[in-house]
Amino acid sequence: MTNDLLLRNVRPMGTAALDLLIREGRIVVLEPGLQAPGIAEEDGRGLLALPGFVEAHTHLDKSLWGMGWRRHQAGPRLIDKIETERRLKKEWDIDPARQSARQLVQSLRMGTTAIRTHVDVDDAVRLAGMEGVLLTRDGYADVMDMEIVVFPQSGLMIRPGVAALMEEAMRMGGDIVGGLDPCGIDRDPKGHLDVVFGLAEAFGKPVDIHLHEPGQLGAFSLELIIERTRALGMQGQVTVSHAFCLGDPDPALVKPLLEAIAELDIAIATTAPASRPVPSAQILRQMGIRLCAGSDGIRDTWGPYGNADMLERAMLLGLRNNFRRDEDVELALDICTRGGAEVMALQDYGLQPGCWADLVLVDAETVAEAVAARPSRALVVKHGRVVVRDGAALIEAP
Amino acid sequence: MTNDLLLRNVRPMGTAALDLLIREGRIVVLEPGLQAPGIAEEDGRGLLALPGFVEAHTHLDKSLWGMGWRRHQAGPRLIDKIETERRLKKEWDIDPARQSARQLVQSLRMGTTAIRTHVDVDDAVRLAGMEGVLLTRDGYADVMDMEIVVFPQSGLMIRPGVAALMEEAMRMGGDIVGGLDPCGIDRDPKGHLDVVFGLAEAFGKPVDIHLHEPGQLGAFSLELIIERTRALGMQGQVTVSHAFCLGDPDPALVKPLLEAIAELDIAIATTAPASRPVPSAQILRQMGIRLCAGSDGIRDTWGPYGNADMLERAMLLGLRNNFRRDEDVELALDICTRGGAEVMALQDYGLQPGCWADLVLVDAETVAEAVAARPSRALVVKHGRVVVRDGAALIEAP
Repeated sequence: MTNDLLLRNVRPMGTAALDLLIREGRIVVLEPGLQAPGIAEEDGRGLLALPGFVEAHTHLDKSLWGMGWRRHQAGPRLIDKIETERRLKKEWDIDPARQSARQLVQSLRMGTTAIRTHVDVDDAVRLAGMEGVLLTRDGYADVMDMEIVVFPQSGLMIRPGVAALMEEAMRMGGDIVGGLDPCGIDRDPKGHLDVVFGLAEAFGKPVDIHLHEPGQLGAFSLELIIERTRALGMQGQVTVSHAFCLGDPDPALVKPLLEAIAELDIAIATTAPASRPVPSAQILRQMGIRLCAGSDGIRDTWGPYGNADMLERAMLLGLRNNFRRDEDVELALDICTRGGAEVMALQDYGLQPGCWADLVLVDAETVAEAVAARPSRALVVKHGRVVVRDGAALIEAP
Repeated sequence: MTNDLLLRNVRPMGTAALDLLIREGRIVVLEPGLQAPGIAEEDGRGLLALPGFVEAHTHLDKSLWGMGWRRHQAGPRLIDKIETERRLKKEWDIDPARQSARQLVQSLRMGTTAIRTHVDVDDAVRLAGMEGVLLTRDGYADVMDMEIVVFPQSGLMIRPGVAALMEEAMRMGGDIVGGLDPCGIDRDPKGHLDVVFGLAEAFGKPVDIHLHEPGQLGAFSLELIIERTRALGMQGQVTVSHAFCLGDPDPALVKPLLEAIAELDIAIATTAPASRPVPSAQILRQMGIRLCAGSDGIRDTWGPYGNADMLERAMLLGLRNNFRRDEDVELALDICTRGGAEVMALQDYGLQPGCWADLVLVDAETVAEAVAARPSRALVVKHGRVVVRDGAALIEAP
């Protein structure tokens, strides 16, 4: 397979129709009326071309995708969901290799070409999640860029042995050190963050911390994260996921945090939940803070929702931020594409010459219509290779 | 057309498979292995059967559905959207008859079999919206139940002549007297509500008031609505749409309002917006308050979103209310079906013998899966007649 392709008659981001020549997986030139004898051609039928979507926060290792419907039974608190999941992972045989591959192919089918996934490391599954997701990363390496966050889902200080397991997971191939609610779940913010940032320093890797803590509590944890980022010179190397405390209505609480986040180039990942306070996408963009988006868990024991569609995530971002004007809806999709690429530090991402040919064709006049209508994916191309046609993946899932 | 049908092998609300005999548009019997010689048969293939969805709050007269993509340009305030819409209705020729028929057929395609629509009556369009939507109601009467709310979208006290136009619209066939933000838009809550309730009394018709006003202001307007409902003996005859003030975090503000609403059987209509405070679906249900849901405007000058899918609305309700357990997701769909039927006072609604045969078949194991996955509608039946097959409407739109 050469990954050469002449994609005719497409409209990148809604521009006039042109042809797109791909060689060795990269976009070489975009012009109308290109000739490229001997190269495979695809007729883009005047469809809208978007860059491959970036799923920047999900949990591939524990989706129930393809396992039939399972009743959701977890209680209302975060800890209820953690405990329920620990039990059901065993009872239901939620195999991380199989399930991560299934969700990955569903993501691909919806036009996602890069994924940052958090993988549970705890005293129950130990390294089984890592082993499974690493198999999937290797098996699908030519169709999906993937970053693995080593994630202490059940807690780190409250679960003896998890720190050592995380260290081992980083050695196995983890890309990023994860963390979780240093106060709310782990009950020892200093201890938790010392381990997380200690591992990051030891391995020379970035950090991505789930921070659900709201209001003043979240602000306190965020301050501790900010202090460590500054002290360790980790500018541009830290992501805070969710960061509900940044959606607090009190500007006296939020503004100094945002200023420090901008100064230290800390990135924010959001799922744009409708039921929680969230950081304002508009304000973050205005302050130059990197913002990416993700589906979070997809049909797992935590909840029933999710289909891995980042066009739908852009719509949910738009609804959550009350984006109505076309330029704002375009920003929502930008967060789900370029925003994710910036956070994952994907090289040569976009629809310009020199970029990797990761792109999605949909039947829509404009970017805003694509978000509002979420049409099925007519074609998905990864590194120049057609991986989805007419909404169907050409890559097999287990 | 006899509207007789033997629908074989379906699972109402996820029960075991059975057959469903429909005569003269009504469900007669539900049993496995039915015989009905001479009656047309449909094979339900074991699909999940749901009652027809109820779109209980929308604006049929001004959707841009099928008019190509139009850039959304309105400013951030409610009054910006009102003024922009007044201008674009003329500039873009948003024909109420054509557009209401288009949205109606899209709703049908998604499984909706009853609609309550608000229709603009103002000093610019005057009665053109009413005339158009009445044509659509008549033209599609055998496939869609429709209630028309006479709606002073641009204000009533601030626009001379609108009260008289509303009276005329009620004479033309309006079912319900509408209202809008008595303080925030109309600047004269007593004047506004006196006209609205005066028309309701004169015509012996119910009331449905858009109330976007938040916090204390909304609570004040709601108190005025409550006082008039009690004084006029209009128990069970009043709907308040949106009611964002009931999503205020202060229970001292919300609780007495909810108690009065429950006592007077006032109904609440919600669109479950992610960016606004909303009444808690859980608490309203616990208090026995009727709650219905709607799409609000669908691809109109107010905003780009919407596809008339009440399964998606149930998902958005679920996300907004943080419903994760299956029984809660079932409640979300119940609001989009039975909840709407209660507010519209639809007679003989449901999947029991004696009910009108308004139903939807989808490929899902359970009700919760239908909401999470939103599969295309395999079959939609209205009064025993198949109106949608394999996701395609058998009824034409202009």
